[in-house]
Amino acid sequence: MTTTDADADGTTAATGTCHGAEPQGVPQGDPQAVTDHDLGIHGYAKQKDAHIKRLRRIEGQIRGLQRMLEEDVYCIDILTQVSASTKGLQSFGLQLLEEHLRHCVADAAVKGPEAIDEKVKEATKAIERMLRT
Amino acid sequence: MTTTDADADGTTAATGTCHGAEPQGVPQGDPQAVTDHDLGIHGYAKQKDAHIKRLRRIEGQIRGLQRMLEEDVYCIDILTQVSASTKGLQSFGLQLLEEHLRHCVADAAVKGPEAIDEKVKEATKAIERMLRT
Amino acid sequence: MTTTDADADGTTAATGTCHGAEPQGVPQGDPQAVTDHDLGIHGYAKQKDAHIKRLRRIEGQIRGLQRMLEEDVYCIDILTQVSASTKGLQSFGLQLLEEHLRHCVADAAVKGPEAIDEKVKEATKAIERMLRT
Amino acid sequence: MTTTDADADGTTAATGTCHGAEPQGVPQGDPQAVTDHDLGIHGYAKQKDAHIKRLRRIEGQIRGLQRMLEEDVYCIDILTQVSASTKGLQSFGLQLLEEHLRHCVADAAVKGPEAIDEKVKEATKAIERMLRT
Repeated sequence: MTTTDADADGTTAATGTCHGAEPQGVPQGDPQAVTDHDLGIHGYAKQKDAHIKRLRRIEGQIRGLQRMLEEDVYCIDILTQVSASTKGLQSFGLQLLEEHLRHCVADAAVKGPEAIDEKVKEATKAIERMLRT
Repeated sequence: MTTTDADADGTTAATGTCHGAEPQGVPQGDPQAVTDHDLGIHGYAKQKDAHIKRLRRIEGQIRGLQRMLEEDVYCIDILTQVSASTKGLQSFGLQLLEEHLRHCVADAAVKGPEAIDEKVKEATKAIERMLRT
Repeated sequence: MTTTDADADGTTAATGTCHGAEPQGVPQGDPQAVTDHDLGIHGYAKQKDAHIKRLRRIEGQIRGLQRMLEEDVYCIDILTQVSASTKGLQSFGLQLLEEHLRHCVADAAVKGPEAIDEKVKEATKAIERMLRT
Repeated sequence: MTTTDADADGTTAATGTCHGAEPQGVPQGDPQAVTDHDLGIHGYAKQKDAHIKRLRRIEGQIRGLQRMLEEDVYCIDILTQVSASTKGLQSFGLQLLEEHLRHCVADAAVKGPEAIDEKVKEATKAIERMLRT
């Protein structure tokens, strides 16, 4: 759960973007408060690459599970691999969530109570879905 | 996993913000605005009561589990009750987390990158602990 | 996840009883196959005491949570305690499940496919409930 | 995390016992009986295909996640998909576990207390790993 290079280098820290997702130039929350975030300045490139690499590893694990089934591997050993992949996915989700809280929720916070309320509700529901799997 | 200075200094402990953590006199949102919150006026009373009521219900469920064991209830039925209590605890935790994000994390957001970073890391670790149980 | 004294001492190992839950003298599965289990020989006393002690500890933790709320403890610290209690409940459930598999499911296994099928479905649903909390 | 004697002795290893373990028309319970299961006759073909199909769907979801990142999809939407994939993996694991309990644990049950004890401990650890992800 570390901040990324993109976060650390200072040039993109203020942009937020919630994983680069905001339409450029579109203000959220209070339309009067135009932030760097609103201007679409963001750059998750390095982080995005790391995320995709991480997902590729998980994808490889899922293919590994298929091979294990083909080769009639003992089911407890398959279950161990299932748990490892599940854990990998959860960790990935947790990292995404951390970035989301850092950028989007924090961004909403400076815009006012309605914005923060909406974002916090949304994030809490996402956490609930993670817990209920 | 430390209480904040605000918790430790005793003056704000009773305020309960962020369930008891808000430094008094610190503006949130617009740095210019002094809010009721900053003045230590807040009203967690009702919510706190609701939380405690909720925990009492869970406490009652745990006592119910002891009775079930005493009465040699079928173990699958005990497990169902265990899951219900676990779910109750998780839901309670989730609600607490939502309030924390709304108040403490949002509060940190207006104070600057270091404050938000610290709070988000802390919250993420708490979420991770919830997921890993 | 250890076997209990009751399991180890040999006198109760064969009785099964799924946490002492079977009505005495009532055959399950195939009515022809009368086992020690059917005869109601069981004695989970020591284990039951350990279980109840364990639940009392969790009950104490839930009361501790109420005190933390009363004393306006920082919410992240409350969340840590919530996770600890949840984990305690899950571990208790897991131990109960292990005993159930050892006694009831194994017991059903010697009675025939229908008996085992029913017990395994039931146990799987219980595990699913544990996972989904 | 050990394969069973049956797996290790080479005669049944290829059969995928417990994941490929259906004793056809075989009496369980009587330790004297040599079962089809022991002879390595099994037929998980259809089920194995269904499992692999299921994993391919999950693999597709993981690739979908990578696309979502590439296309800068809003992080909460990515998290929803992460939770769906995690749930898919957990459900797959649960089905595998159910089959394992039905075949391997039941199989061990008729072989005696040591066999069942070993299998139940192993299964419980697998369930614990599923819970702790």
